[in-house]
Amino acid sequence: MSDYEVRAQNGRSVGLVEKKFFEFARPPELMPLESGVRFGPITIAYETLGQLNEARSNAILILHALSGDSHVAGYYSKDDKKPGWWDIMVGPGKAIDTNRYFVICSNVLGGCMGSTGPSSINPRSGRPYGLDFPVVTIGDMVRAQKALIDHLGIEQLLAVIGGSLGGMQVLEWALSFPHMMKVAIPLATTARHSALAIAFNEVARQAIMADPNWRHGDYYGGPRPDVGLAVARMIGHITYLSDEAMRLKFGRRLQDKKVFSFNFDVDFQVESYLRYQGKKFVERFDANSFLYITKAADYFDVAEQHGSGSLVKAFSKARARFLVISFSSDWLYPTYQSRELVQAMKKNCLDVSFCEIEADWGHDAFLLPNPRLESLIRSFLDHAMEQ
Amino acid sequence: MSDYEVRAQNGRSVGLVEKKFFEFARPPELMPLESGVRFGPITIAYETLGQLNEARSNAILILHALSGDSHVAGYYSKDDKKPGWWDIMVGPGKAIDTNRYFVICSNVLGGCMGSTGPSSINPRSGRPYGLDFPVVTIGDMVRAQKALIDHLGIEQLLAVIGGSLGGMQVLEWALSFPHMMKVAIPLATTARHSALAIAFNEVARQAIMADPNWRHGDYYGGPRPDVGLAVARMIGHITYLSDEAMRLKFGRRLQDKKVFSFNFDVDFQVESYLRYQGKKFVERFDANSFLYITKAADYFDVAEQHGSGSLVKAFSKARARFLVISFSSDWLYPTYQSRELVQAMKKNCLDVSFCEIEADWGHDAFLLPNPRLESLIRSFLDHAMEQ
Repeated sequence: MSDYEVRAQNGRSVGLVEKKFFEFARPPELMPLESGVRFGPITIAYETLGQLNEARSNAILILHALSGDSHVAGYYSKDDKKPGWWDIMVGPGKAIDTNRYFVICSNVLGGCMGSTGPSSINPRSGRPYGLDFPVVTIGDMVRAQKALIDHLGIEQLLAVIGGSLGGMQVLEWALSFPHMMKVAIPLATTARHSALAIAFNEVARQAIMADPNWRHGDYYGGPRPDVGLAVARMIGHITYLSDEAMRLKFGRRLQDKKVFSFNFDVDFQVESYLRYQGKKFVERFDANSFLYITKAADYFDVAEQHGSGSLVKAFSKARARFLVISFSSDWLYPTYQSRELVQAMKKNCLDVSFCEIEADWGHDAFLLPNPRLESLIRSFLDHAMEQ
Repeated sequence: MSDYEVRAQNGRSVGLVEKKFFEFARPPELMPLESGVRFGPITIAYETLGQLNEARSNAILILHALSGDSHVAGYYSKDDKKPGWWDIMVGPGKAIDTNRYFVICSNVLGGCMGSTGPSSINPRSGRPYGLDFPVVTIGDMVRAQKALIDHLGIEQLLAVIGGSLGGMQVLEWALSFPHMMKVAIPLATTARHSALAIAFNEVARQAIMADPNWRHGDYYGGPRPDVGLAVARMIGHITYLSDEAMRLKFGRRLQDKKVFSFNFDVDFQVESYLRYQGKKFVERFDANSFLYITKAADYFDVAEQHGSGSLVKAFSKARARFLVISFSSDWLYPTYQSRELVQAMKKNCLDVSFCEIEADWGHDAFLLPNPRLESLIRSFLDHAMEQ
């Protein structure tokens, strides 16, 4: 029995999944973007797990974070070494139970994992868009997802769920299409980026744009701005972990030797970890997509875009029931930012549950196994399905 | 009356100062470094302010942080627009009163502001050292300072004072030369870098080394790795400010316009600030020095180097009285790290005062005007001078 079969038999994975593609906004039916640009055609890569029931009432849309994709759970083939990015949460018998729910996950507009983005071919030139790709927003990403949900014939989602950038999309869904979901579960997210979060993104973008291989985004077919993208990813990784998490995970432990090198090679394990993360990332991610997606995250501001500057006013549009979850050691989107969300919801008499989960692992905690997180999501979905 | 004269008359500055140079470790009298390398000649750039009294009992050594230099206060010429980096603290009538004290500040070994470092000429090759410069430690920097203090004929310093990397040097002084000072004032510092602090330094170094102009450190005379160094500096600047400081200083305010650019130019003020800081830094700092000094900071570990892993054992060597100061919003060297220092001092029955100053400005707070900080330092020095 292969490793894959063992895992599938254990009910630990949904098994084999397939990436599908939905095309829309074909000229002349272009999609109007928030920037004012009209854009198309657009392809959205997506995957589905489980079965849509007859009442079409069991669909859950999962929204991925910055470096995620449509491959939320399961395996593409029996030889795959790793399942989708949230396989611990999504599968038969898991918190998001694919025996009960029909799960949909799509790659964001502007991404590089099958949906149209800066690395896609511009039909006008026959070459990749590069910086000719328009700057898109979280709102644009969500409107593209809405087109997909319409295409799938779903009139109301049971739930929209996502963490980090995915959580921003959850909020955008709840305010742009308030009747399209029963419940909304934003995890480890924020109504808007703080100056600190913008600062980290900006430095990461500068690292990419400083790489001479970047060539103003026109690097396809030539050497890629891998070193810049690796530095950008390393900056990101620092923000995903907490001081405490790094202390527990690495401390000041040295890599492969007991004494200092007295040169600029790796000395500490944390250095080795970061270099490895940077190197691994460039194998699978497009530098321009990193620029576009981080810019969308920086622009996102629920209060500005839905409430003329007032978060309370913005949430007057919402109709979903909310489960808001933050993590105690998340310093990228600290708990106080989730509390601001919750207060704005409550002032609108929305049905909202809030939980700050004690976890040492910083922002990344929402992606790690956590019984409390799993049980909160499971029971919230159970309840939503019964109503 | 010139701007300079107004400032000087107001007693706000010590006035004109001059950079001086001390050379030692001339071959064959080389200086043994912690790495095992024997190195020389070494030039140390330094400045002095005020007058050494007859008893030679009023000398204060100030140790600078990563990007500082010997120019702690005053002006080099009447046309200078800006005084030294700690002019708010050091001058006639100020907390470190140059009417009472003889102040010494020197550029660290490995730096680029007059002391021997990687951009200095290697007398063997007639060209700048680049990476042929040996990796130095905080201990090496302090031993070079000790040679300078000996050269100045000072048998005991009244005080050693410094913040951040300067604070590490204070700790090193107190343990390497315990009888050489009456009091030691480490500000906003740590006994050792956390994994988080190492991570930030490592990413900054990677940004420099990723710049093709870096050429393994051999860029002198050609184009400099300015873009890499600018990114490195931007990363540093994020760590010097707090979430709160950035929110107060920038929030989500836009630069020069009321709407998003929908491109990758500057949108937010915080982006503009970081780009400006990066640009300004490369005009005055050497990229290789940045590598060497951050490495020295990462290697620094008082417990390992003086106490076989025990901070308490390390401080059994100390004899000075200590004033330890941390800042509430400093997340680079958080207060808990200062508390660890204080506990180790107390367990050795050392005379130690500790204060966490409430300040919104993050790690940078030690460089900003702060009446509480000034009065703590002033009265601690008063008291030390009287005894």
